[in-house]
Amino acid sequence: MSTKFADDSLALHTDLYQINMAESYWADGIQNRKAVFELFFRRLPFGNGYAIFAGLERVLDYLKDFHFSESDLEYLREELGYKEDFLSYIKDLRFTGDVYSMKEGELVFANEPILRIEAPLIEAQLIESALLNIVNYQTLIATKASRIKQVVKDEIVMEFGTRRAHEMDAAVWGARATIIGGVEATSNVRAGKRFGIPVAGTHAHSMIQAYKSEYEAFHSYAKRHKDCVFLVDTYNTLKIGIPTAIKVAKELGDKINFNGIRLDSGDIAFLSKEARRMLDEAGFTDAKVVVSNDLDEYTILNLKSQGAKVDIWGIGTKLITAYDQPALGGVYKIVSIENESGEMVDTIKISSTTEKVTTPGRKKLYRIIDRENGKAEGDYITMHDEDPSSEKRLKMFHPVHTFISKFVTNFEAKDLHVKVIEDGTVIYKNPPLQEMREYAKENLNLLWDEYKRSLNPEEYPVDLSQKCWENKMRNIEEVQEMVEDFINN
Amino acid sequence: MSTKFADDSLALHTDLYQINMAESYWADGIQNRKAVFELFFRRLPFGNGYAIFAGLERVLDYLKDFHFSESDLEYLREELGYKEDFLSYIKDLRFTGDVYSMKEGELVFANEPILRIEAPLIEAQLIESALLNIVNYQTLIATKASRIKQVVKDEIVMEFGTRRAHEMDAAVWGARATIIGGVEATSNVRAGKRFGIPVAGTHAHSMIQAYKSEYEAFHSYAKRHKDCVFLVDTYNTLKIGIPTAIKVAKELGDKINFNGIRLDSGDIAFLSKEARRMLDEAGFTDAKVVVSNDLDEYTILNLKSQGAKVDIWGIGTKLITAYDQPALGGVYKIVSIENESGEMVDTIKISSTTEKVTTPGRKKLYRIIDRENGKAEGDYITMHDEDPSSEKRLKMFHPVHTFISKFVTNFEAKDLHVKVIEDGTVIYKNPPLQEMREYAKENLNLLWDEYKRSLNPEEYPVDLSQKCWENKMRNIEEVQEMVEDFINN
Repeated sequence: MSTKFADDSLALHTDLYQINMAESYWADGIQNRKAVFELFFRRLPFGNGYAIFAGLERVLDYLKDFHFSESDLEYLREELGYKEDFLSYIKDLRFTGDVYSMKEGELVFANEPILRIEAPLIEAQLIESALLNIVNYQTLIATKASRIKQVVKDEIVMEFGTRRAHEMDAAVWGARATIIGGVEATSNVRAGKRFGIPVAGTHAHSMIQAYKSEYEAFHSYAKRHKDCVFLVDTYNTLKIGIPTAIKVAKELGDKINFNGIRLDSGDIAFLSKEARRMLDEAGFTDAKVVVSNDLDEYTILNLKSQGAKVDIWGIGTKLITAYDQPALGGVYKIVSIENESGEMVDTIKISSTTEKVTTPGRKKLYRIIDRENGKAEGDYITMHDEDPSSEKRLKMFHPVHTFISKFVTNFEAKDLHVKVIEDGTVIYKNPPLQEMREYAKENLNLLWDEYKRSLNPEEYPVDLSQKCWENKMRNIEEVQEMVEDFINN
Repeated sequence: MSTKFADDSLALHTDLYQINMAESYWADGIQNRKAVFELFFRRLPFGNGYAIFAGLERVLDYLKDFHFSESDLEYLREELGYKEDFLSYIKDLRFTGDVYSMKEGELVFANEPILRIEAPLIEAQLIESALLNIVNYQTLIATKASRIKQVVKDEIVMEFGTRRAHEMDAAVWGARATIIGGVEATSNVRAGKRFGIPVAGTHAHSMIQAYKSEYEAFHSYAKRHKDCVFLVDTYNTLKIGIPTAIKVAKELGDKINFNGIRLDSGDIAFLSKEARRMLDEAGFTDAKVVVSNDLDEYTILNLKSQGAKVDIWGIGTKLITAYDQPALGGVYKIVSIENESGEMVDTIKISSTTEKVTTPGRKKLYRIIDRENGKAEGDYITMHDEDPSSEKRLKMFHPVHTFISKFVTNFEAKDLHVKVIEDGTVIYKNPPLQEMREYAKENLNLLWDEYKRSLNPEEYPVDLSQKCWENKMRNIEEVQEMVEDFINN
């Protein structure tokens, strides 16, 4: 956002209650107790069979720079009435913990720890809101992009959503997330500069209007731009737009690369087929048909079923806003905390809603891959000291309907977490964006098609180890006993 | 976003095609032709009867600072291959035009010019994407907030959505927009600091988990915080949470302000009534019931119809993401441009979809207010040289179904535009946020209730003056003739 304060920091980019809790922890002298928090979501978005994690780069930037600036402290003092003792404590506060994270481009499913934060309680608490703000959005958009790519398949997708994104950060970080999800390019130049994303775009209707005619506008455009895609729907696509584009392309010959035409309105199924025919008949068989008009995976599926001849899909609003489900419900929950004797004690949040009961304890997450066919059998959450690789025959059972189970042999157990921050220092180097994109693509190859269907996919197994499950049951019982005791006394 | 480049500017926060068009205008020597663009949307969001404009402050910041930085130019040169002649031209480019705008908090309806930009063609073109990015989001959220306030009425609404907002800018600018729409406070501390918004929040479940019991956690919280709202749903709301809150409040007596309890799960209708009863019976009749659990105007309406006893509504996801319609379709269209003889010529974008046909020409926008009852009769769009105030008897007719008309007498015609930038200099001073909020509230008093219903409101009249309508018809005919000529030749 624009900087009213020269020393604008992101430490205040949090919910007020985090600071209030931090103050209480500090006042009680428990602020440095080691705590373990996990970030996860409970439901996959869009009814999709998987999600794609994005957001780590921004999370690392945020944690690396975490500090309260002078103007932050002054605001807390003057406007919110925090006292000097606490303020002088947080003045020097930095993030000093460890962070384990999935890599960006990793496939993630419901209830899987995406990030695990192991840090002094006060630090782990203060960073919650920003981490959720970043990961929820970027993961949502990478997932939406991947869904669209599943339907589009081998054609090219370009992200065109800046004008409808939720303010500026969403436009640029969202553009980046779509690339991780499989999109080829963005129209946002700043995102291109910042992240090295290919940028794309030619001209708009206003240029035709400024020149009053397509003929003049196309010629003018071609004077300075060798690669030309002409927008043909300003007046009449089939009778004026496409004939004019072809005429100009013929007149200019080798002086330009006539890359094709763009359709931005009307019936794309019909017009794209006609456009293809007209371009082919004129000898421009390599010219592409680019379309952009309120598209998403549902429309694309329909257009394709009607035989639309589209080479490049420009997708704006519905991608960058995740229109049909504009929020991922990621949460950040404490799973273990040091007690007064210095021991780690697991903690659980119970709820009458089964899916809201957390899984206590410091845990690891493995993807179980069948060595024979190279496909993922499911994911497997264990306590931190377990190593499924050492087992010959792994029993995997459903964490709610425990009677559903299977045995897996000859498998590889891939640890999905990387230590990215150690004692507050970032030790992970973000790979180039294109590598993250490739990584997501490779990961998708691990999945059977039944999990990748855009409508009603099968549920991919995310199971708990026996030990993890027993620990959860024990914790539930303890809380239930505590509740009973309270009610009876 | 995090600054990889120390001189990160927002000039590249645009779609690539804007820069390509800018280059063509410059190459043809028409970059300084005076152009008039209007920013408007074609449909009200959420099926609402009105929208509330927000975003001007950010727009002014953006235009004031508009310039290409060194690293921007280097990126355009090295990565995108723009040539030195053009780059050296845009190096010194600043925004030098005039901007007319509605005030933030103004009621706005479909097809009304929110902003009118009068500037050299190249400047007006380059700023399109950023202006839409800002205004679309902020106006959407202010409108959503206002919708919620219409249902909530006199109770308090707090914005709690940071963790689900679309990245960081959306969290803070969104929080600000909700205030313009009528919300009372936000949980986002950075938004509080930046915009002077009241911030609110107490503690979360993780604090109860860290202390293992509500009793200890509430006491610990109260040690440092005089104003206490206790979260009571961690274990069992009615049997443990509320009794513990009451117990702690009684033990601490005057040492704290026991402001109430917060419910974050379960059946809010039932629990809020029980909570109210228990608090009243314990003598805490002033203590508030705060609720926060996936709320929006539809849920609130239902809860209220079931007699829920709620004093404060905390609203997160569905407000900050405008969940049920996460994009406003604002567009930015050229309506007039200088020709080679220095005359302004109106321009139109036609379409087979009636609502997509633009209204050509430099225009003004008036709200026609009945002096007798103080209510708005409708809005009235005129050509720039018209002044409806000079008329005794105003004929207002529907711009599509022109036979629907009425005559208005004894009216005030309020010009809804303020000149905010003159020759590139910002001449408008943003009022304090609370004033914008008041302004929106006063504006809503101008509207009959039939336009403010959350479901199926009546359509508020937005009419064209006779002159404006005739100009539009003339422009349509001209284009149609041009199209016919093209097709026949």
